[in-house]
Amino acid sequence: MPELIVKVPAEETSYALKIEKNLLSQIGREISALFSGKKIMVVTDETVHNHYGENVLNQLRRAGFEVQCIVLPPGEQTKTFSSMPAIFSQLIEFGLTRSDLIIALGGGVVGDITGFAAATYLRGISFVQIPTTLLAQVDSSVGGKVGVDLPEGKNLVGAFYHPELVLIDPLVLETLTNQSFADGMAEVIKYGCIKDQNLFNHLMEMSSREEVMDQIEWVIETCCTIKKTVVQEDEKDTSERMLLNFGHTLGHAIEAYYHYEVYSHGQGVAIGMVELSRLAEEQGLTQTGTTEKIIKILENHQLPTKLETPADYAEILPYIEKDKKNFKGNLNIIVLEEIGSARRIKTDRTFFSKLEVGGNKP
Amino acid sequence: MPELIVKVPAEETSYALKIEKNLLSQIGREISALFSGKKIMVVTDETVHNHYGENVLNQLRRAGFEVQCIVLPPGEQTKTFSSMPAIFSQLIEFGLTRSDLIIALGGGVVGDITGFAAATYLRGISFVQIPTTLLAQVDSSVGGKVGVDLPEGKNLVGAFYHPELVLIDPLVLETLTNQSFADGMAEVIKYGCIKDQNLFNHLMEMSSREEVMDQIEWVIETCCTIKKTVVQEDEKDTSERMLLNFGHTLGHAIEAYYHYEVYSHGQGVAIGMVELSRLAEEQGLTQTGTTEKIIKILENHQLPTKLETPADYAEILPYIEKDKKNFKGNLNIIVLEEIGSARRIKTDRTFFSKLEVGGNKP
Repeated sequence: MPELIVKVPAEETSYALKIEKNLLSQIGREISALFSGKKIMVVTDETVHNHYGENVLNQLRRAGFEVQCIVLPPGEQTKTFSSMPAIFSQLIEFGLTRSDLIIALGGGVVGDITGFAAATYLRGISFVQIPTTLLAQVDSSVGGKVGVDLPEGKNLVGAFYHPELVLIDPLVLETLTNQSFADGMAEVIKYGCIKDQNLFNHLMEMSSREEVMDQIEWVIETCCTIKKTVVQEDEKDTSERMLLNFGHTLGHAIEAYYHYEVYSHGQGVAIGMVELSRLAEEQGLTQTGTTEKIIKILENHQLPTKLETPADYAEILPYIEKDKKNFKGNLNIIVLEEIGSARRIKTDRTFFSKLEVGGNKP
Repeated sequence: MPELIVKVPAEETSYALKIEKNLLSQIGREISALFSGKKIMVVTDETVHNHYGENVLNQLRRAGFEVQCIVLPPGEQTKTFSSMPAIFSQLIEFGLTRSDLIIALGGGVVGDITGFAAATYLRGISFVQIPTTLLAQVDSSVGGKVGVDLPEGKNLVGAFYHPELVLIDPLVLETLTNQSFADGMAEVIKYGCIKDQNLFNHLMEMSSREEVMDQIEWVIETCCTIKKTVVQEDEKDTSERMLLNFGHTLGHAIEAYYHYEVYSHGQGVAIGMVELSRLAEEQGLTQTGTTEKIIKILENHQLPTKLETPADYAEILPYIEKDKKNFKGNLNIIVLEEIGSARRIKTDRTFFSKLEVGGNKP
């Protein structure tokens, strides 16, 4: 029979991540160097807008761009599929074309929803990430995962879509709450756990937000380098990239069980890393003493190391299978061999069952 | 300053387009050869479901797959962003994972909305196109453009996302209405106009649906080969691919002005090709006599060659600038040099202004 083969051309693209204190005051110059179009839509949230919105908009206007701004309500409840039509309407109203630009100015929520809007509006237009939380700077702004939540669960709809540029100004972290900063530290510590003993050891020596901020450019660069390396090997998250989920399987279940109101993402991941490490240690998969080190480092950085009410685990564990990554019942778990080295094992929910009997006591 | 370069790996993919009479009765075998997973969601519309739904579902079940079906209301009004949450809910309810499959069984509307669901659900899962209209078989199922409409306009949200396989059974065209068949013929004729004098001449010799059906495999293969070649050169529609828009700029405006209720896509394109060709001929851009040939061939295939109420052009023309491709006011128009050869010119709305004074009289 007639059979045609359609070849989809391979596109190798790349983008820069720039990390520098006070970079936010150079936005006009940075965007001018990248973008020769006319219109820019800045998407941000109320909190970030109050701190940095006018500054960024004014710089872009002074650089000669026609600029408008969408200010979203802060928080995860903004990152839903149902928020999209209002965003698209504003892009259309502004007359944004495929040759214009969108800038995401904010944390993970703003980056994810703006990235998804950029990925799908007119089948994709260019965007730039300016992450303003530690979590977004070391994690969500790198790697091209964008998306929104559905009523049925988080990040169920999205795309792999990369920004043209990521601009990271560590000084904007000064305006974060302690909890938001600690949230980011959970991911920073995770990078040490799975890939970098040296990073882990340095973080172990720091015991306050101030000490971290003294070396913040190095910390962010180290984390972004790890993420970049992992993502380059496995953009679509089918193997190596899964290592980034260390602590996340249980962490997501904890977050979801309490409707994202009791434990933040970082707190869930922190507890997830401890419990996972302890279970793996007991099974001889992880070097003895690893869990203790993880507990110590999390305490240094104001992160929880256990669930307040361990009796809830019986009801939390079923949430593991509601996670899209675990739909089929065969669960991929990331275990540490030792600090700095992780591997993936296939298992099932019974891996966690010791937690159900009133919590996992050491 | 620290600057990391993230390289996004290039992925060269390809997919097959198979064209064969009675291929629909081989779906079980074809899908089994492609897909080793478990679950398949078939998305179709009521009309197609009535003709072919049970047959396809039964074949897939006999081949050992777990199959469910989403049956959408027929027509363009289904292809909206607001239809997506209900589709996603059914995919989630079925427990579809990234390693499962979606099949689009239907015309352009089903293919576009299903492709967009596949592109974004869990950040992208595999899908197969089984186009059941002539328009979808020669046009929308090839090239990776998927998307949905917003209240503000058509195809404003979408992605470039390619199927794993396109299965074309020309026999399913037997159940099309004459109007739907003629709609597809407008695109078939367009391919002749822009790229293939031989195709054009053959179509000129045919004067009924039956005569086309006698050579339908050749017709479809010829059109798909043109589309494939154009798309391979310019997946993202920035240059060569624009040639496919011959007649579409005015056609889209005609469709939109009458709210998609008076002129179908093919009818709009047919009139668009005639008027465009005539205006270009008058300006010496197109070989004299070309318009006459186009009128003749369209009449052969039951397509309109002029607007019923040319006085409407004054109000139709502003719709040209509402098209997303023309947002910026600088319009790309495709003109024929002669039958079989087209080129793109940059112009503006005044190109069409002769139409405003009560229609363009030859």
